[in-house]
Amino acid sequence: MKFDLNKSIEILSRTPCVLETLLSGISDEWLMNNEGENTWSPFDIVGHLIHGEKTDWIIRMEIILSDAGDKRFVPFDRLAQFKESEGKNITQLLEEFKTIRKQNIEILKSKKINSNDLTKKGIHPAFGEVTLKELLSTWTAHDLSHIAQIARVMAKQYANEVGPWKQYLPILTFSL
Amino acid sequence: MKFDLNKSIEILSRTPCVLETLLSGISDEWLMNNEGENTWSPFDIVGHLIHGEKTDWIIRMEIILSDAGDKRFVPFDRLAQFKESEGKNITQLLEEFKTIRKQNIEILKSKKINSNDLTKKGIHPAFGEVTLKELLSTWTAHDLSHIAQIARVMAKQYANEVGPWKQYLPILTFSL
Repeated sequence: MKFDLNKSIEILSRTPCVLETLLSGISDEWLMNNEGENTWSPFDIVGHLIHGEKTDWIIRMEIILSDAGDKRFVPFDRLAQFKESEGKNITQLLEEFKTIRKQNIEILKSKKINSNDLTKKGIHPAFGEVTLKELLSTWTAHDLSHIAQIARVMAKQYANEVGPWKQYLPILTFSL
Repeated sequence: MKFDLNKSIEILSRTPCVLETLLSGISDEWLMNNEGENTWSPFDIVGHLIHGEKTDWIIRMEIILSDAGDKRFVPFDRLAQFKESEGKNITQLLEEFKTIRKQNIEILKSKKINSNDLTKKGIHPAFGEVTLKELLSTWTAHDLSHIAQIARVMAKQYANEVGPWKQYLPILTFSL
């Protein structure tokens, strides 16, 4: 499948609602348990997605599309959510994610990105030149990756309860 | 996390809505593409979930709770959806899944399952004795496993579009 802006927006606009449908009102055990030391719970992951909306995707898009001489991105803080989500509950996080994602999709649409824009470049702190197409594709795949992660973390909570069926559910033993 | 009937129902009752939120009205490429030969698309997976509602979970629960002398389960057909979903669209499948899941949750609740019931057994065609607790845990984890699979299959459609970010998204290269 080739990158397509409208098809990317189909995913980007659904993710907050998908997570709200899955997580809103659910028991704390599903929400706060993780896969073990230094892994993330569904609650942590929603915080991570919010931090991406605030500091990553749109900011980097703006850098790529700007006339600035220096197109280097600021490194993304993968652990920011542990501080930023403190004292919040999942209802607040889901609402925050929904609101900021909606705003960011509006900004994305307002840029009226054309095929020439998609080839414009920024400088990623770890691997150098990246295009706008790659950034927007990653934003989309990143959403889906974290939906999958949340479902996996939740499935694993029953890893010892399924008995012999564990052999039919490889998700219960793998980490990605 | 220990098996808990109400917490399992939290997942079982959400899954059809989660899939509807993610898949309803989405482009065919997200819906019908898979991970390669002999793998499933999101469309195929919804059909598989419907077939489980019709022939697996509730039927097996009834066998375990029955007074029958023979508690052997009929083997589950993992490929039934390729025939059963033929000629249907995703709107029909999502509606069908929602309806039958709702009915099955009602049946599940009507059994007023107690802790003694959870230890009752049936005979799985591949690995012999299994308990009702294990069956109901697996029904729940199976839902989450397929939500994760759907998100992974969709993410992979952009595997070549994300450029160097591929190394940060292991989901794009792994299969579970």
